This record gives sequence, structure tokens and C-alpha cells, in this order.
Amino acid sequence: MTKRNILLTPGPTPVPPQVLQVMAEPIFHHRTPRYRKLFGEVSEGLKGIFRTAQSVYTFTGSGTLAMEASVVNFLSPGDKVIALEAGKFGERWGEIAARYQLNAVRIKVPYGETISPDEVGKALKQNPDAKAVFGTHCETSTGALLDIQAIAKAVSNTPAIFVVDAISALAADRLEMDVWGIDIVVSGSQKGLMIPPGLTFLAASEKAKVLNKTAKLPRYYVDLTQYEKSLKDSDTPFTPALTLVLALREAIHMIQKEGIEKVWTRTAELANYTREAIKKLGLELFSKRPANTLTAVKVPAGIEGEKLVSIMRDEKGVTMAGGQGEMKGKVFRIAHMGFITHADLETGIAVLKETLNELKSKGSNKVSV
Amino acid sequence: MTKRNILLTPGPTPVPPQVLQVMAEPIFHHRTPRYRKLFGEVSEGLKGIFRTAQSVYTFTGSGTLAMEASVVNFLSPGDKVIALEAGKFGERWGEIAARYQLNAVRIKVPYGETISPDEVGKALKQNPDAKAVFGTHCETSTGALLDIQAIAKAVSNTPAIFVVDAISALAADRLEMDVWGIDIVVSGSQKGLMIPPGLTFLAASEKAKVLNKTAKLPRYYVDLTQYEKSLKDSDTPFTPALTLVLALREAIHMIQKEGIEKVWTRTAELANYTREAIKKLGLELFSKRPANTLTAVKVPAGIEGEKLVSIMRDEKGVTMAGGQGEMKGKVFRIAHMGFITHADLETGIAVLKETLNELKSKGSNKVSV
Repeated sequence: MTKRNILLTPGPTPVPPQVLQVMAEPIFHHRTPRYRKLFGEVSEGLKGIFRTAQSVYTFTGSGTLAMEASVVNFLSPGDKVIALEAGKFGERWGEIAARYQLNAVRIKVPYGETISPDEVGKALKQNPDAKAVFGTHCETSTGALLDIQAIAKAVSNTPAIFVVDAISALAADRLEMDVWGIDIVVSGSQKGLMIPPGLTFLAASEKAKVLNKTAKLPRYYVDLTQYEKSLKDSDTPFTPALTLVLALREAIHMIQKEGIEKVWTRTAELANYTREAIKKLGLELFSKRPANTLTAVKVPAGIEGEKLVSIMRDEKGVTMAGGQGEMKGKVFRIAHMGFITHADLETGIAVLKETLNELKSKGSNKVSV
Repeated sequence: MTKRNILLTPGPTPVPPQVLQVMAEPIFHHRTPRYRKLFGEVSEGLKGIFRTAQSVYTFTGSGTLAMEASVVNFLSPGDKVIALEAGKFGERWGEIAARYQLNAVRIKVPYGETISPDEVGKALKQNPDAKAVFGTHCETSTGALLDIQAIAKAVSNTPAIFVVDAISALAADRLEMDVWGIDIVVSGSQKGLMIPPGLTFLAASEKAKVLNKTAKLPRYYVDLTQYEKSLKDSDTPFTPALTLVLALREAIHMIQKEGIEKVWTRTAELANYTREAIKKLGLELFSKRPANTLTAVKVPAGIEGEKLVSIMRDEKGVTMAGGQGEMKGKVFRIAHMGFITHADLETGIAVLKETLNELKSKGSNKVSV
């Protein structure tokens, strides 16, 4: 049995040893000066990663919870919104909007493609009453990157707010919340932030905060007014996932030490290395505008995609991700963000090559076996 | 500086070393057979602790999220509900109901008291159109225990469902979801289940599931139909807080090894020991119907309650909880559930005695200093 254990999935990503370690420390109570000091540090640190002077609110939950929070805290029933859907996670915006009886204009492109800023501009002209545009920075189901800088510019000239799901893009692809004029950024803990899943984050611009004042959709657990009030005392309104907050402080320290700009550059280099290596194997990238977060690769003809992923994982100790939803069996995905190293990717690519060859030779020998 | 570090707070409670340890293990991906095996075991184990044959759904979030889930998954705008409010957490039911435009009949008693099954029966007669009764098994802000067995009996003869917040009572006070006929039980991870905060649970009866089919309140992240569908494959619809699920398996194994009945008996003994020790110190219990989870104690005259708690914590390494909301400074609270031992409580009581004496002598010497 191999002892190899390399995680190349786009969340959870590998957790650094020093981060794992603090989660095993004895637990303590959260309504204490010790917790407020910790949470104050974390909340300040997140601002540097979100590139914002605004508060970053921390919810205990999965990323989808913060997506829902960015709908219910800013909108009212019947509001018109524009949802940019270029994959499974973009579609989630449309789904949440539909659940809350919003009037959602859904801009949909085939999986693997992305939505151009021009298309968004056109939709905004056709729908001047739109209250919000919802987009996905890195569409994790396809590996495609949305040009959120240009889209933010288009949205900023309208009354709408621009809401970005940066769950898998944060601390992987450059994101400048304040400078680019993004109104809401949501993210999660188990991607570029290098800690386990269980925390999710939201930051809002002044423009968004104005909308929050009249938003009528019902909410309780994610009601931002409670988080804003608690954050003044470096606290959360409900019991936080303490061990994950401890972990996050360690991870933020690592990011601060390296510098967020360098994190982006390093991730871009790993992404580039991976894409080149994939092409050298004669494989085809799935996305036309690939993100730094992950690379989605087309499963070559004659290979079962799900089998490829499970053999690499169960027999060779390299976990890549298969396709999600309608992409199942058609792509596999290799993450290169967070604590994933060049060496991890080299091994991953070597194992991929080996497994593809094995599967191909089995395939061609099928009749004679 | 003392090395003592005893946590006697009603959540988070101390986490056993073997549970802490698994959280420091390398992370893995959740869309894998390994995770499904783990989550299947945990979901089955929870049934034994909830004493139900129904599915127990796991959300990543704080306890309040599951409370909200038990409102939005079963009710429609304008529905009449009865909220039993005997403290801060009972009031939360009324608050959530108000946010979702339910017609809430709020039965309120002073902090420290509890609501009798007769009062609930009377309210149900006066409100035969009530769709749900919301109660709190152990009211953590006062230490009072609700007679949920008798109330379940009263509710079961009506069309209403009985929803119980057992966040701090589970695995501390006897709770028999199926036998007693409770329709919804919600709980949290950081109390009797002995793991850090970040997971919360909900189980629903067949009667509740019928109501779920017509419930019109909007929901996405906590939508039970998604959790039900995923649970068939021992999975969750959204990325779970993996490290906490790993921790939970260890904790459930410990509970299974001891047996839930013995956990209840042991906790009752610790509660009894604590109450007797408190009385011996000449202090007064705050609640008339005390729970096994925790003991709330009246702050004696001449003592500042918040100061008492902070001196014990910061100078003597024993963390008890102060009062919450309107109870601030009036009570302090000692938990005796989960991994808290007799020895912890003995030390805690000794430190309490010592600190009270110090504060009293300081108080009487005030003029001469």
C-alpha cells in the first residue's frame, strides 16, 4: 500500500501542519477577552486579503450560506437581479434568487466559457431597474475566470450592486475589492485560505450597505446588522466555530508573511506550470479563460473520467476532483492554490500520465484479456 | 502563573484529547467513499443519541441555524405558532418567528422559572389553529429544564408540531424523541456531544415531514429536501466542516461505549453534586427546576458577578459563564455535561469559594485600604 497522500482538489485544499496543530489545542470559551483578541486579529487580517477597508463578516457555515446572505441582506421580494451563469456555481445564484422570489435575468453560457463584460453591460442597459448583478470569480466547476474588474466597472455606472462569489478565487487570483469597486465579496475557508471548511465570509461596500437598509427579505442567522454590532466588540452574534478561527489566524499569518501579491504570483506560476504539463500530455484544457485556482481538463476519448479519478485516488494516493453535475465524467480538475506545492503538482501530473497509459493499454487489450 | 485550565462553560465544553487529536489529521476530500463512510457512521450514531428512527440532518453552522431551519422548513407566512419563552434562548424562538412574519403567541415567564405543561395545554385550546409549539429543553441562560415529555403529550393531541431546542440538553438530560412524540429536535456540537462548535443538527417526525411538504417560507442553505436527498448517499449538499465531522465520530464512539443512559445518569450525578456544593457555600440556585446541563447560581449580595467570573478565569484558570442578556451580573453558570469531570467541578467549587472569600474580605476592608 502506498503512503502517498496528495490532495489536489479545489476545496478542501491541503491544510499546513502548523494550522492543523492549533486545532488540536484545548478549547476555550468564546465570550472572553482571549477570543475577542483572536477574532479581532482574524477580522483585520481578512481585510488585507479581501483588499478592502470595509468590515469582513465571518459566518459559521459553508460558502453557500454567505451566498444566501448576500441575497437576503440586500434585496426585497420581486427585485430584479442579473445572474451570470457559466457553470454549476453561477447557476446557484439563479437558484437562490428564484427561491426568494426575485425576478432573475439569467445570462447563461455553455460550461467552460465565460461571460464578457460587454454582455453584462448590454444586460444592464436592457434592465436599468436591476438591483444587483451576481457573478462567480472562479467558476470551480469549469475552471473559468470571470473578468470581474471590467464587470465591476460596467456595474458601477448603474444603481445595481455587483456581488462576487470569490469562494475559490480568493488568495489565488488577484481581487481588489475596493479599487475595482466590487460591492460584495463572499468567500470560504477551505480554498486559498488553507483551513478546513466551516467558515464563510462576506464584505460589503457603502453602496451595498445603503441597499441593506431597505432590504425586506427575511433573515435571522445571517442578518448582517447583528454581525456588524458584534464585530464592534470583535465578536460574533452566535457561537463561532472556534477551532477554525484559531486555524484561520495561523493561515492568515502565513499569507501576511508571504504577502498577498506574492501569493497571487506564486499561484499563477503553479497554474501555468500545470496547464503546460497538461498540454504536453496531449490533453486539452476545458476552459478558454482559465483561473489560477484550478485547471479543468477534458477527459480524453476512450477513458472513463470517474474511473481515472478513483484509480489515482484509491490506488495511487493522488486526489484530483472529477466533474460536477453535467460535467461528470467529462472533465477532471486539478487545484493549484493555497498550500499545494510545485512538487505536489509534479507528482500529480506523473501519476496522471501513468494512470492514463495504464487505462489506455487496458483499453486496447480489452479483447485479448 | 497557574497552569490550571478548567472549562466549566455551557458550550463550548471541554473536548476530549482523542477528539482534539483527529482534528489535526491531514484533511481529505469530502466527495469520496472515505467521507461517505464517515458521515454515514456519524448520522447513524446521532440517531441513537436523539433516540429516533428518523434521519438526523447535519448542517455546518451554529445552533441558531438549526433553530431557523426548524422554522423555515415547516411553516408558511402568517402561520400561528406558540413560543415558550423562559429565558434568552426561548425568546430567540419568538424573534425568529417575528422575522418570518409568523403569528407568534408568546408565553413568557420570568427568568429562572419554567412553563408548565398545563399552561401549554391551555394555550393550545385557545389557539386550535396553532401550527407549532416551540420550546427549549434546557434554557441555558437560566439553567431551567422544560418538561418536554409532558408538553409533547399535550401537543400530540393537536394538529401542531412540537419543536424542541435541545442544543444544550442533548446527551445531558433524558430526551426520547420518538417515545415521547417530539416532532423536531435541534441540537449543537459544542455541548453534550463534546466537540467544538460548528455543526448543528435537526431531526423531524413524520408529522413534521407532512408539514414540510406545504411549507412556503423561503430557504436555500438549510432546505431539508436537499439534505434528505444527499443523506441517502451518506453525503451533504454543501461542503461540510470535515474536521468537525471527524471529531464527532470519535465523540459518538465515546458516548456509544458508555451508553446514552449512563451518560444521562452520570450527568445527573454531577449536577446533583454541584447543586449540593453550591448550597453548602450558602449560595442560592437560580432555577426552580434545574437541568442536568448546567447550574445557574445567584450572585450573592455585595459581589460583582462579572468580576467574580473574570477573576476565576484570568487569575485562577477556572472558566465559568457569567449571565447573559438581562441576567448579566446577576447569575453565574457552571456546566456539568460532556467531558466535564467530578474532579473539574471539585476544583471549580474550591476556586469559587476562595474567590468569593477574597472578594468579600476586600469588600469589608474597602474603607481601611
